Amino acid sequence: MKNDSQIKIVEVGPRDGLQNEKISISLDDKFQYIELLSKSGLQFIEAGSFVRPESIKQMAMTDKLYEKIVESKLDQFIRFPCLVPNLIGLENAKKAGVKDIALFTAISDSFTKKNINCTVDESFSRMKEVIDNASSEMVFRGYISTVFGCPYEGKTSIKRLCEVTEKLLDLGIDELSLGDTIGVATPSQVVEVVSAIKKICPEDKIAMHFHDTRGMAITNVLKSLELGIRIFDSSSGGLGGCPYAKGATGNVATEDLLYLCEAEGLSTGIDLEKIMDASIFILNKVNKTSPSKFFITKLKERL
Amino acid sequence: MKNDSQIKIVEVGPRDGLQNEKISISLDDKFQYIELLSKSGLQFIEAGSFVRPESIKQMAMTDKLYEKIVESKLDQFIRFPCLVPNLIGLENAKKAGVKDIALFTAISDSFTKKNINCTVDESFSRMKEVIDNASSEMVFRGYISTVFGCPYEGKTSIKRLCEVTEKLLDLGIDELSLGDTIGVATPSQVVEVVSAIKKICPEDKIAMHFHDTRGMAITNVLKSLELGIRIFDSSSGGLGGCPYAKGATGNVATEDLLYLCEAEGLSTGIDLEKIMDASIFILNKVNKTSPSKFFITKLKERL
Repeated sequence: MKNDSQIKIVEVGPRDGLQNEKISISLDDKFQYIELLSKSGLQFIEAGSFVRPESIKQMAMTDKLYEKIVESKLDQFIRFPCLVPNLIGLENAKKAGVKDIALFTAISDSFTKKNINCTVDESFSRMKEVIDNASSEMVFRGYISTVFGCPYEGKTSIKRLCEVTEKLLDLGIDELSLGDTIGVATPSQVVEVVSAIKKICPEDKIAMHFHDTRGMAITNVLKSLELGIRIFDSSSGGLGGCPYAKGATGNVATEDLLYLCEAEGLSTGIDLEKIMDASIFILNKVNKTSPSKFFITKLKERL
Repeated sequence: MKNDSQIKIVEVGPRDGLQNEKISISLDDKFQYIELLSKSGLQFIEAGSFVRPESIKQMAMTDKLYEKIVESKLDQFIRFPCLVPNLIGLENAKKAGVKDIALFTAISDSFTKKNINCTVDESFSRMKEVIDNASSEMVFRGYISTVFGCPYEGKTSIKRLCEVTEKLLDLGIDELSLGDTIGVATPSQVVEVVSAIKKICPEDKIAMHFHDTRGMAITNVLKSLELGIRIFDSSSGGLGGCPYAKGATGNVATEDLLYLCEAEGLSTGIDLEKIMDASIFILNKVNKTSPSKFFITKLKERL
């Protein structure tokens, strides 16, 4: 971080957002969404995931998408991390020219088993293989899911979180993203988690990844900001989330994050109106309205 | 306040909530909504408004509604404040047996002119008349609207807010409710406003009244809590709000407030499930889904 009022936003709409949308998006539309996002000043846009196409259909053709990114030369100005689950994914990522690799695990075995069909310990072997075989220019972001609660195991322990974090840091990750996968985090829990992690991980490596399932994401972001955190993941328009419940959302909306940052005098270097343009484009494609109240209110002002 | 972890919630759904709903609610349905709310442990439910029936149709028959409350003896256990704009309203409130009077003004003349057709100064003459002619057992709640911003005058000044507050305190009000009428308050503004008001008004007389138009209400509540505020206005289910924009909501939902309080270890004495029962009833009547993400997520858990 350049200074204390500079916020880094990792836009995860094209990956975490779209991955949870029912309507399938074409390669061209996905690339156009990324192009629109690129015009906003965003420096980090998570583009896709090199998982097996059968497992997450919405992430199929990440290789083709990345080729388009390279062709357009957008990757000369913006970093486009992609999820890589294993060696096969790594090979495909290398071929496509990916430089930013996102690795992922969780703190509960039940979740990793459902999610990636292995235990947390086994996920570390896979991540180590990926890092050991990576090219020298690659950098690594480590996601931990279910940090604030697991859909199968309930409340998770700080001790376990610290163990997993230390193992990730030992692997040599450059950034750590703490995920509230099911949107259960509360402000006091954020204080507990961030305080514990700050003792074992440099503050400027910690990102918070909140979902807004219970409308608490922006409150949790503010708590994190007060504790010195300066990196946040978000998805434009509040894309994603559970397709089963109207209003039950996925990632905190990038627009909400920008609104809070501006209100608190923090700098993001990102143009809200340009983010909204991208959101309008993609929400239209997935045939949804944004779950962000701020977005809806801003949209009204445009009319 | 009995102790520092005890929160007082003033449920404003039947008044501020319904007042902003397009679909007209029958007297019986309104009373049934109040009866359902009464089962939750709520101690304060704003029942209605003694304004001219022509000016706010949804508030017509507040006298009849209050008679039903008195007949049911609910008013022996719960306080039911009603808005009283002038002497005619006061006479009707007296006849109906109302004991808790809510007075209202704002800090911008443009707003009071549109809202109650007088300047802020003139509103004080009216309020003084009401207080001077009130019965001895009556208690007074003073609302200040547009505290954080006015739809006509934009940002409002702290100096002006303090002047209006001091005049209200001089009138002898027992509680002050600071209203973010158009939902523009931000956390740093909450710090500014609450810090200023605490210097001139006892902390245990200050209530915060947030609208969730930009999704910032719960964050603002948390900031207020951190500054020692223990009284909040809210409407069950997030009732009310602007009828013109989907998702652009009115008062912060009582359910959101209860979720935050529970998460932060604060006691309200209110049963969330019972509040939800009341919300489901009234949302059904106004043919709306709740704008509260927490409410929607909880509702899913019931299925």
